[in-house]
Amino acid sequence: MKNIYMIGVGLIGGSLAIDIKKKYPEVVIHGISRKETTLDEALTLKLIDKKATLDDVVHADLVIISIPVDATVKLLPIVLDKISDNGLVVDAGSTKADICKVVENHPKRRNFLAMHPIAGTEHSGPSAAIPDLFVGKTNIICEVEKTTFKLQEKALELFKSIGMRMRYMNPEAHDKHIAYVSHLSHISAFMLGKTVIDKEKNERDIFDMAGSGFASTVRLAKSSPEMWTPIFKQNKQNVIETLEEYITNLTHFKDLMKEDDFDAIFKEMKETNYIKDILKGIN
Amino acid sequence: MKNIYMIGVGLIGGSLAIDIKKKYPEVVIHGISRKETTLDEALTLKLIDKKATLDDVVHADLVIISIPVDATVKLLPIVLDKISDNGLVVDAGSTKADICKVVENHPKRRNFLAMHPIAGTEHSGPSAAIPDLFVGKTNIICEVEKTTFKLQEKALELFKSIGMRMRYMNPEAHDKHIAYVSHLSHISAFMLGKTVIDKEKNERDIFDMAGSGFASTVRLAKSSPEMWTPIFKQNKQNVIETLEEYITNLTHFKDLMKEDDFDAIFKEMKETNYIKDILKGIN
Repeated sequence: MKNIYMIGVGLIGGSLAIDIKKKYPEVVIHGISRKETTLDEALTLKLIDKKATLDDVVHADLVIISIPVDATVKLLPIVLDKISDNGLVVDAGSTKADICKVVENHPKRRNFLAMHPIAGTEHSGPSAAIPDLFVGKTNIICEVEKTTFKLQEKALELFKSIGMRMRYMNPEAHDKHIAYVSHLSHISAFMLGKTVIDKEKNERDIFDMAGSGFASTVRLAKSSPEMWTPIFKQNKQNVIETLEEYITNLTHFKDLMKEDDFDAIFKEMKETNYIKDILKGIN
Repeated sequence: MKNIYMIGVGLIGGSLAIDIKKKYPEVVIHGISRKETTLDEALTLKLIDKKATLDDVVHADLVIISIPVDATVKLLPIVLDKISDNGLVVDAGSTKADICKVVENHPKRRNFLAMHPIAGTEHSGPSAAIPDLFVGKTNIICEVEKTTFKLQEKALELFKSIGMRMRYMNPEAHDKHIAYVSHLSHISAFMLGKTVIDKEKNERDIFDMAGSGFASTVRLAKSSPEMWTPIFKQNKQNVIETLEEYITNLTHFKDLMKEDDFDAIFKEMKETNYIKDILKGIN
């Protein structure tokens, strides 16, 4: 690979650029963004070597799209129209069903690979890009069989080389499960933040009482609404289902407290301590 | 101070012991625990210098009680009965109203100081004790005026010397606000863990999809039910109130999704991003 085009040079695109450049110094990273100022920032931070525009992707060996998922759905068919026969387009979106759907009948479908690297922080934009973000992280690949073998092989080798482990899944299963282990966490954090701010906003001193536990639980409420609104929109049915189950569990906990059934409260928590085993494998 | 008795030698008691010993090598730390095996562990870990029993607290300059809050309510009056006129008893419980209430008419009330150091991790027991846990952390002191001045002065100097900043508050205000910034976070994490485990327990592979965001949001679900059940019991009314507000906010978010009002969803998140400013001061 020689020419890689990053559409979106924020947290994910920028971090991918850093690691790819480190492993493959001969690669030229071209940056594409809606905003000129974002590209300037990415250049200054040395995330990209050159600025480019959409029409330039005809020269790409690889295009990586890391932008909000509503923008991906719009842009992906256009990029696929422009890509050469030997070029591959990959997206890094947090939803997979709508994205796979929009290109299912595209004549260049075999030049596209759908992926979701499970990596990130609550920050966004070029300045949020960091090295080694993907080391030891899972990269979910959807509908791998629909991509030309030679192209997927090269791309997967690249992603492995920067530390990711591949997992294969269909887009519907991805969206269903990711609603539980990622999307719900974000809403739980946002609404926790809202609840506390609503109550305490006139008593700023109160936040002196907040410790590392609160900070950890509410951390994801710093995340970008520009990124997350379209994710919730695309994964609406699954997210609503997880929210309903979460609200049911919280209501049950509250009812147990009202009934003074603290033996049951104890049991609820003891059983959930099992999460320790589950979290062992997660950074 | 020469003889300090730690009743409870777990995360909080053990970590206090480590830091006090480092600052005041001449102090002898005596450990008291319900379980002999816990004391043996604390001795092996060098958290304490000697084992002791409740009757020994007559020799104490300072007694620090760091045990579940239901046990504190039972034990505190008994310890106060035994303390000498020049001894001080301090508790480190996460609730303050019931604890202050149980000794309000105790003849030795002036030998007691109620505190809540806002520090901790999700781990428990002697092996969870770590150095420097209290550096830069808030220590909430309740009803300071009810403690003999000479005794509070010595104790507060000690806590300052290991890095804590004091804040003064009445027990009812403490319990009300701490429900928002600490107790609710624990329930939100426990129920998030439960929701995901219930759904995904037969699909262990799915947890490969969980990233650092999920780990952070659910971290407090590793906490000790032995510690937290009595906290929720003692702070029942306040905790139920926070839960009701949290559930209302989550339900509103879900309803906005059902109505496809993603502009409002965006706005909810954008406003809550304000949590960034609030969290800046928290480790």
